[in-house]
Amino acid sequence: MSVNQTNDKAKKKIIVLGGDGFCGWPTSLHLSQIGHDVVIIDNLSRRNIDNELEAESLTPIQPMHTRLHAWKEISGKEITFHNVNIASEYDQLLQVIKQEQPDVIVHFAEQRSAPYSMKSPKHKRYTVNNNMNATHNVLCAIVESELDIHLVHLGTMGVYGYGTAGMKIPEGYLDVEVTTEKGDRVQQQMLYPTNPGSVYHMTKSQDQLLFQYYNKNDRVRITDLHQGIVWGTNTKETNLDDRLLNRFDYDGDYGTVLNRFLMQASVGYPITVHGTGGQTRAFIHIQDTVRCIQLAIENAPTKDDRVMIFNQMTETHRVVDLAKLVSEITGGEIAYVSNPRKEAAENELHVKNDLFLSKGLEPTTLNEGLLQEVSEVAKRFRERADYDKIPATSTWTRDQKPGVPEVNEKEHVQK
Amino acid sequence: MSVNQTNDKAKKKIIVLGGDGFCGWPTSLHLSQIGHDVVIIDNLSRRNIDNELEAESLTPIQPMHTRLHAWKEISGKEITFHNVNIASEYDQLLQVIKQEQPDVIVHFAEQRSAPYSMKSPKHKRYTVNNNMNATHNVLCAIVESELDIHLVHLGTMGVYGYGTAGMKIPEGYLDVEVTTEKGDRVQQQMLYPTNPGSVYHMTKSQDQLLFQYYNKNDRVRITDLHQGIVWGTNTKETNLDDRLLNRFDYDGDYGTVLNRFLMQASVGYPITVHGTGGQTRAFIHIQDTVRCIQLAIENAPTKDDRVMIFNQMTETHRVVDLAKLVSEITGGEIAYVSNPRKEAAENELHVKNDLFLSKGLEPTTLNEGLLQEVSEVAKRFRERADYDKIPATSTWTRDQKPGVPEVNEKEHVQK
Ligand SMILES: NC(=O)c1ccc[n+]([C@@H]2O[C@H](COP(=O)([O-])OP(=O)(O)OC[C@H]3O[C@@H](n4cnc5c(N)ncnc54)[C@H](O)[C@@H]3O)[C@@H](O)[C@H]2O)c1
Ligand SMILES: NC(=O)c1ccc[n+]([C@@H]2O[C@H](COP(=O)([O-])OP(=O)(O)OC[C@H]3O[C@@H](n4cnc5c(N)ncnc54)[C@H](O)[C@@H]3O)[C@@H](O)[C@H]2O)c1
Repeated sequence: MSVNQTNDKAKKKIIVLGGDGFCGWPTSLHLSQIGHDVVIIDNLSRRNIDNELEAESLTPIQPMHTRLHAWKEISGKEITFHNVNIASEYDQLLQVIKQEQPDVIVHFAEQRSAPYSMKSPKHKRYTVNNNMNATHNVLCAIVESELDIHLVHLGTMGVYGYGTAGMKIPEGYLDVEVTTEKGDRVQQQMLYPTNPGSVYHMTKSQDQLLFQYYNKNDRVRITDLHQGIVWGTNTKETNLDDRLLNRFDYDGDYGTVLNRFLMQASVGYPITVHGTGGQTRAFIHIQDTVRCIQLAIENAPTKDDRVMIFNQMTETHRVVDLAKLVSEITGGEIAYVSNPRKEAAENELHVKNDLFLSKGLEPTTLNEGLLQEVSEVAKRFRERADYDKIPATSTWTRDQKPGVPEVNEKEHVQK
Repeated sequence: MSVNQTNDKAKKKIIVLGGDGFCGWPTSLHLSQIGHDVVIIDNLSRRNIDNELEAESLTPIQPMHTRLHAWKEISGKEITFHNVNIASEYDQLLQVIKQEQPDVIVHFAEQRSAPYSMKSPKHKRYTVNNNMNATHNVLCAIVESELDIHLVHLGTMGVYGYGTAGMKIPEGYLDVEVTTEKGDRVQQQMLYPTNPGSVYHMTKSQDQLLFQYYNKNDRVRITDLHQGIVWGTNTKETNLDDRLLNRFDYDGDYGTVLNRFLMQASVGYPITVHGTGGQTRAFIHIQDTVRCIQLAIENAPTKDDRVMIFNQMTETHRVVDLAKLVSEITGGEIAYVSNPRKEAAENELHVKNDLFLSKGLEPTTLNEGLLQEVSEVAKRFRERADYDKIPATSTWTRDQKPGVPEVNEKEHVQK
C-alpha cells in the first residue's frame, strides 16, 4: 500500500462528470488508483467537437470502453461509465446520483475553450446553454437527492480577466470597508469581483453565483477550484499503457498556450505568439491538477462553511518568455502573429495559492525535463498533426484578426 | 400634441420583449402613446403558467390580438406582435430584429416570480434555462444583427438580498480601495456584489455578468434597471378601455406584496404577513415603471459608456407597516403566517435612486387615493378570485413552511 493509498474508511464513492476529458480522465484514474470507487459521467461532446472542428487529439485516444477495459487489466480496478448529457438529461443524471450515492462529485463537464466559445453566435449560445444548465442541474440534483454530497468544481483563473491593478488575486473573497448610512465604517467580505475575458470565462463567473446561492440556501458543500492553464499530457497512471494515453489538444481552439508552443516546435511549425506576448498567465502541470483534486476531496468543507475557493495554479509566466524558453530548448522559431482575442496587450498577474500549499501541495514547476517530455509525445505523434488546424482563427469581434503566421514563415514548416 | 409627445426626430422603433406581461403591456401602450413605433415579442408563457397554476389574473385580460385591436381603435396607433420564445427560438428572434431594425429593445421577457422559481426542481431549472438563454440570445442577436441597438433590461433590487450592513445600495457600482503587491493603495470600481435571495434573483445577478461582458467585448449599449416591487394595476393608457386592462396577480406565486394585501383586504381574506413582517422592501408604482422606461430610453448610454445601472424604485417600507396601513384603510385583519422563504426575519434597506431623480422622475409615492384605486379594481373583480390560490405555498427548502393562515382565520373569509 503506497503512502497515497486510501484506507477503507477514507475510501469514497466519487462521480467524475466530464471524466473523458483532458483533466477528467487522468483525475479518474488517479482517484481510482489511490483506492476510491470512481464512476464517470460524460456525453462525449468533446469528441464530437473534434469531429466538428476536424481536429483530433495529437495523441490517439481510445474509446471509453477500451480505456476502462485497459484500466481494469492493468490496475485490477473497475471504473463504471454512464453516457449522460448533464445539461439536458436531468432525470438520467438524478437517477445515476440516486443509484450511486456518491460522497463526492467532481465537475469537469463544461465547454472549456475560450476561442470555441467566441467562434460564432451558435458557439456562444452552445457554451452558455451547456455550461449554465450543466452546473445548475448538478446542484439541483444534489438537493433533490437529499444526499450530503461534496461538489468539487473546476473554475478558471481567467474569470478575473487578468486585470487586477497590481493586486494579488485572493482565493475567492475580498475584504472591503464600506460606509453605512450612519457614517460607520463596516468590514464586509464579498466574492472577489470578476472581469471575464470570453463567453466561456463568463459562464464560469456565472457558476460562482450558482454555487454561492445553493450553498446559502441548501447548504450544499462546495469547493470551487480556480485553475490556471494546464500543461503536460500524461500522469503516472495514463503512462502505464498506451490505451490510457491522455488527450493532447494542439488546434487553435482547444490547444492551450504552453502545450501548443511545445507541439509547434516539435513538428517544425513557428511558435505563434499572439500580439506582443506580454500577457501573463497562471499555469499548473496536469500531474498537479490530479493531485489538487485529491487534496480538495480530502479537505472538504462542512455544512456550515461558505463555498471554499482555491486558486489551483503553481506559477505565472509571460507568454513571450515561455515562447523564448521553448525556442531555446527546441531551436524552434517564434512568429509574432495577430491576437485574435480582445484583451490588454500586456498585463501583470499576481496570484495567491496559499490554500493548496497549506494542504500539502508540492508544486511541479516548469523544468526542462518535463518540457522535453511533452516534446517527446508531440514528436512521437507528429504525423497525426494537421498543420492547417494550428492557427487560432476564432476572433473575439470582427475587428480582431486570426493568429495566422505570414506565408514566408509558414514555408519554414517541414511537412 | 402633449408635452410627452415625441416629435418625428425623437420617434424610435422599439421592440418590447415580454410585452404581454404586467409591466410590458402598459409600457408598450405608453411608448406607443407618446409616438414611438412599438413591436411586441412574447411567447405567452406567463398565460400558460396561469393555466399550470390554475390561477388567473384577477382582472380579465384579453388575448393579444383583442388588446391590439382595441388599442388601434382607441388611439389610432398600430402595435405589431410576434409570438416568439426568445430563449429557444433564436433564429426567429434574430429575424424579427433584422426585419424591424429597432433603435431600442426593452427586455421584460423572463420568468419573474421568486416563489415560482423555488417551487420544485423543474421550476428552478425552467427559470435558469429560460432566463439565461433569453438574455444571452438577445445580446447575441444584437451583435449578430450589426445594428446599434440600445438594450433596456429589467433587473431587480432583490439581487442585493437586502442585507447590506446598513449601507446605502449604490446604483450598480462600488468604489473600493485595494492594496497592490507593491503596497500602494489603488481605487477600483466594481459591480456592487450581489447576494440573491432565490433562484429567480440569482438569474438576474447572472444577467449582470452577461451585460458587463457584451458591453466590454462588443460595446453593446445597455441600461439595466434594478426595479423594486411594482404595485398598482392600471396606467393612463390601460384605463382607456376594459379591453386594455392590465394583469393583476394575487396568487401565492406571482402576487407581490402590496397588491396582495390590498386584494386580500378587498375580498375579505386575512392580510397574510410572512414571519414578523420585519422585511424592508423597495417599491414603485406601475405608472412610474412606464415613465422610468421612457426616461431610460431618452437617456441612452453611448458606445463608450459602461452598462448604466439605475435603481428603479421610489420608496422603501417594512412589510408589516404596509399591512397595518392597508388594515387601517380597509378594516382588513392581519394574519401572521409562516415565512416560506429562507431570509433574514428583519432587515434594513437604504437605496440610492439619484439617477432617475436627476433625469426628471417625479415619484408617485404611496397615498390613500392610489391604494383605494387598487382596492376598487380588486372589489370589482372579486368573484374571479380563487381563495385557495391566495396562500404562498412554494417553500425555499423543506425546512420552511407554507404561508397559510390558521383555520379559524380562514373562517373570517366571506365567500
Ligand atoms: N484544460 C485547461 O487548461 C483548464 C484550465 C482551467 C480550467 N479548466 C476547467 O477544467 C474542466 C475540464 O477541462 P478539460 O481541459 O479537461 O476539458 P475537456 O473538454 O477535455 O473535458 C470536458 C469533458 O466534459 C464533457 N462534457 C461537456 N459538457 C458535458 C455535458 N453537458 N454532459 C456531460 N459531459 C459533458 C466533455 O465531453 C469532456 O469530456 C473544465 O471545466 C475547464 O473549464 C481547464
Ligand atoms: N412585477 C414586479 O414587481 C417586478 C419587480 C422587479 C422587476 N421586475 C422585472 O420586470 C420584468 C417584467 O415583470 P412582469 O411583472 O411584467 O412579469 P410578467 O411575467 O407579467 O411578464 C413577463 C413577460 O415575458 C414573457 N416571457 C417570459 N419568457 C419569455 C420567453 N422566453 N420568450 C418570450 N416571452 C417570454 C411572458 O410571457 C410575460 O408576458 C421581469 O424581468 C421582472 O423580473 C418585475
